[in-house]
Amino acid sequence: MKARPLKRITSLLPILGWAPAYTKTDAQSDLVAAVIVTIMLVPQSLAYAMLAGLPPQVGLYASILPLIAYAVFGTSRALAVGPVAVVSLMTAAAVGQVAAPGSAEYITAAITLAFLSGIVLVVMSVLRLGFLANFLSHPVISGFITASGILIATSQLKHILGISADGDTLPHLLGGIYAGIGGLNPFTLAIGVAATAFLFWTRKHLKPLLLAWGLPARMADLIAKAGPVAAIVVSILAVIGFGLVDKGVRIVGEISAGLPPFALPSFDPGLWQQLLLPAVLISLVGFVESVSVAQTLAAKRRQRIVPNQELTALGASNIASALSGGYPVTGGFARSVVNFDAGAETPLAGVFTAMGILAATLCLTPLFRFLPQAVLAATIIVAVLSLVDFAAIRRTWAYSKADFAAMAVTILTVLLVGVEAGITAGVSLSLALFLWRTSRPHMAIVGQVPGTEHFRNIDRHDVITDPRILSIRVDESLYFANARALEDAIYDRIADQPELRHVVLMCPAVNTIDASALESLEAIAHRLASAGIGFHLSEVKGPVTDALKRSDFMEHFKGRIFLSQFEAVTTLTGMQHQDDAATG
Amino acid sequence: MKARPLKRITSLLPILGWAPAYTKTDAQSDLVAAVIVTIMLVPQSLAYAMLAGLPPQVGLYASILPLIAYAVFGTSRALAVGPVAVVSLMTAAAVGQVAAPGSAEYITAAITLAFLSGIVLVVMSVLRLGFLANFLSHPVISGFITASGILIATSQLKHILGISADGDTLPHLLGGIYAGIGGLNPFTLAIGVAATAFLFWTRKHLKPLLLAWGLPARMADLIAKAGPVAAIVVSILAVIGFGLVDKGVRIVGEISAGLPPFALPSFDPGLWQQLLLPAVLISLVGFVESVSVAQTLAAKRRQRIVPNQELTALGASNIASALSGGYPVTGGFARSVVNFDAGAETPLAGVFTAMGILAATLCLTPLFRFLPQAVLAATIIVAVLSLVDFAAIRRTWAYSKADFAAMAVTILTVLLVGVEAGITAGVSLSLALFLWRTSRPHMAIVGQVPGTEHFRNIDRHDVITDPRILSIRVDESLYFANARALEDAIYDRIADQPELRHVVLMCPAVNTIDASALESLEAIAHRLASAGIGFHLSEVKGPVTDALKRSDFMEHFKGRIFLSQFEAVTTLTGMQHQDDAATG
Repeated sequence: MKARPLKRITSLLPILGWAPAYTKTDAQSDLVAAVIVTIMLVPQSLAYAMLAGLPPQVGLYASILPLIAYAVFGTSRALAVGPVAVVSLMTAAAVGQVAAPGSAEYITAAITLAFLSGIVLVVMSVLRLGFLANFLSHPVISGFITASGILIATSQLKHILGISADGDTLPHLLGGIYAGIGGLNPFTLAIGVAATAFLFWTRKHLKPLLLAWGLPARMADLIAKAGPVAAIVVSILAVIGFGLVDKGVRIVGEISAGLPPFALPSFDPGLWQQLLLPAVLISLVGFVESVSVAQTLAAKRRQRIVPNQELTALGASNIASALSGGYPVTGGFARSVVNFDAGAETPLAGVFTAMGILAATLCLTPLFRFLPQAVLAATIIVAVLSLVDFAAIRRTWAYSKADFAAMAVTILTVLLVGVEAGITAGVSLSLALFLWRTSRPHMAIVGQVPGTEHFRNIDRHDVITDPRILSIRVDESLYFANARALEDAIYDRIADQPELRHVVLMCPAVNTIDASALESLEAIAHRLASAGIGFHLSEVKGPVTDALKRSDFMEHFKGRIFLSQFEAVTTLTGMQHQDDAATG
Repeated sequence: MKARPLKRITSLLPILGWAPAYTKTDAQSDLVAAVIVTIMLVPQSLAYAMLAGLPPQVGLYASILPLIAYAVFGTSRALAVGPVAVVSLMTAAAVGQVAAPGSAEYITAAITLAFLSGIVLVVMSVLRLGFLANFLSHPVISGFITASGILIATSQLKHILGISADGDTLPHLLGGIYAGIGGLNPFTLAIGVAATAFLFWTRKHLKPLLLAWGLPARMADLIAKAGPVAAIVVSILAVIGFGLVDKGVRIVGEISAGLPPFALPSFDPGLWQQLLLPAVLISLVGFVESVSVAQTLAAKRRQRIVPNQELTALGASNIASALSGGYPVTGGFARSVVNFDAGAETPLAGVFTAMGILAATLCLTPLFRFLPQAVLAATIIVAVLSLVDFAAIRRTWAYSKADFAAMAVTILTVLLVGVEAGITAGVSLSLALFLWRTSRPHMAIVGQVPGTEHFRNIDRHDVITDPRILSIRVDESLYFANARALEDAIYDRIADQPELRHVVLMCPAVNTIDASALESLEAIAHRLASAGIGFHLSEVKGPVTDALKRSDFMEHFKGRIFLSQFEAVTTLTGMQHQDDAATG
């Protein structure tokens, strides 16, 4: 009896599960991983804050306390939380609706969004609503991320070109770039293109090169991952050395150094109402992304994550982000993989990373002053273009037109209308297509495979049928949306077959029959009876039979329920012979 | 080749199908039915117009041209269209949102609503969207009608009591009656109670009594149906004879006589926007009601109706109603049954009824001037209380808690919030519950029934299992909402069974596998492979196999697809023996 409360506490605070057994070896692994992730996360935090329309230090704030909160509550050993590209874009879209970029209200709204998102996640955890994330189908998520990647990359082009351009949708963004292209700054362009090319090169070719030079794999990996740091250092030196600020190259500028502030979200009900839907969407998208990364990594080491506890952990991370002046965060794919590959053994790696970011926030911010925005934009572009997956679009088209439709609508709506509309349209369409499909169930007239007790579709197999018996198999649960389709199919068939004496509905794929379908079965039985035709069921599943017994269906039902279609046909043919003999 | 265009025209204008073969006998039957329906329809038209908050003559207008339009386009031989209780209530709710009762704008809005509803129905017909009505499940429709009946009956109490009271919801209506009960008019109350009691009595007891007196059945029926006419005549005479108007009994008052006016709906886009959702809901509810009545009656005479053509016919009826100063109409249950029982053979009965109503509109309206509103209210109360079906609530509760939940939410929302909110909530909840259920599919671990090739649930049957082979049957199509549930179930089981060598997923109830579920199957195969466990499928349906072949699943898939579970277990056990022999 003593173990149970402890187990409950451990399941609420997973840190209690691993912390007592923490070893020195673990600490070494975690520290190495933390150093690598910190190097990667500092420029990303600045860049994603810029993408979200926020001052750069807000990105750093969002990379400190949230990591510690996740370490306490999270069940993944390798997940690295913080600002990510897609959520930053969604933040910009949501907050841009309620406040002007650059204003104090904008920052407050971003903090409030993080807080609301945290509340939504915790509420989902308490009410065990994590299953809602299952309704974001794979094609919708994949399309959403691809389209967001395109949108984000396009939105960063203005920084590479050194022009001013605004817009939330692809046509607006492209229109803005087209209109502003005359004001192109050649110095900015040179830095931007060089940084982008360099980052693509380090990502693709640096590690193989270093390995070819004989460096140990670990070291090669570490150097390749530090590519963005090199780009930052070189570009800062170039800006200072060549006095590029005077030549119109835009830089990050003053970043307020110091500890993350203690911040409070706004409690204005009007603002909450405006931000609630975005907060729900950010929570769902963030949760799906985070859990799929965490599950992939956990599977590699035979660990398990607890999706419902992940909701709590991400909720706590977002609340922590809000209270320390940050904006919405979630588990990031790239940084988690880096953390995992670098050997992180426990969530303490996240705590060490948080300390690294804190140190950077306290000491390094003056160094970033001369960092060109174009380099941050290059970091973002290189990161998000890896999210764009055109092959998935082709695969989905080949496999299923319905899935492709959901994906295409998601992509087009994200690009042409916006991120929130895109995910809403994709989810709605995929649900509508599922409902539409189940409302038109596959039905097959079946006959007996000669020499066996099996019954198969007469259109696909050479089978024996009896014109007096119609065996029809319905390949779907019967519920309100398809009950009438069943009626129509049966009525159509009986009109064609005047010798018909019995209809047997074969139900091996019927997992439930709801009240509407029950009414339809009663209507069918009634109508067939008045035409002198018997109506029977076969291969009804246990749970369905149990449910039918709870209704008064059995009292009215004159037909029989056969265990197998073979039994049905044998029995009914036998009865038929007797009838024929009696009348003959 | 000549027959085809003719057949197409006949399917668009069903009147061409029956008119050429029309006989004198048909004409006699239709005329008799028309007389009876006219007698029934005149007071109902006045009453339902009052329920909709419209002047009484609008109810008459809605009972002339729409009947002729239905006769031309409709496929039911017995359906009688016109104003009905539920649609009148929905009209009052919708139009009351945009205009003040009694104003000219109110009448224009009602006309516009009829026009919009007609357009919606015709568009649904052209786009073949009739299947949308299938998403109104039986419990939702039943609950909606019961709750509407209660709401309508309550809303008429004020006329019986002779007080003023307003409200759209049950609490408001009851509150209004409670507040106004002091102003109760005893004369009105006497008339109202007497009329209600008389109408209930004629409906329940008059026909048996007449039959007991030896009257022929047809005559008894006719006299019983004329009950409301008797109540009207007697009450008019009483009002005039006793000078009840001076004693505060409210009467219908002046009704403008004459032909229905030619009217045009408003084309104000703002008004259209406000009325569009109500028009869609009225169209769907009206269509479902009308089609189910028409189907029931058609089945009795072995006729068929064409649901899609019914959309056109109801659309034409509503447009005809709008253009002649009427409001939304649909096929009514009571009057169609009366029409059918009275022997209507063709839709020409409807045309004759229209002429009867037209005659009444031209000649009889002065007579209705002194008709007490309490008598019309009594007609409505008696009509709608027959719609209230508490037994259906009990039956649904016994059969399925999910269906009951949808019904209960519909009823409560209609009573407490309103009709539109009620039907929306009911449909949303029934869809959500369906999705939720399919997102948690029934899965069973199965074993072999001794001595057979059948595999059944190990929890329900005594079966043989092999600890090295896990046979798991999933009783649902695999799609995005349940793909993760399948993964979790399999991962949970493999953790428990260390001797496990093979997992076989038995798919007889899997009707489709979407792209998300395909990803999950790949993930499961990958994960099991890395744990040294084989993953196989069995009893995969033809269409599902075809789909899998279109993807690259088969290229990666290392497992086998067995025709039957028996084959799977036999083959895998054989392989197992070989492996054991090799390692042993």
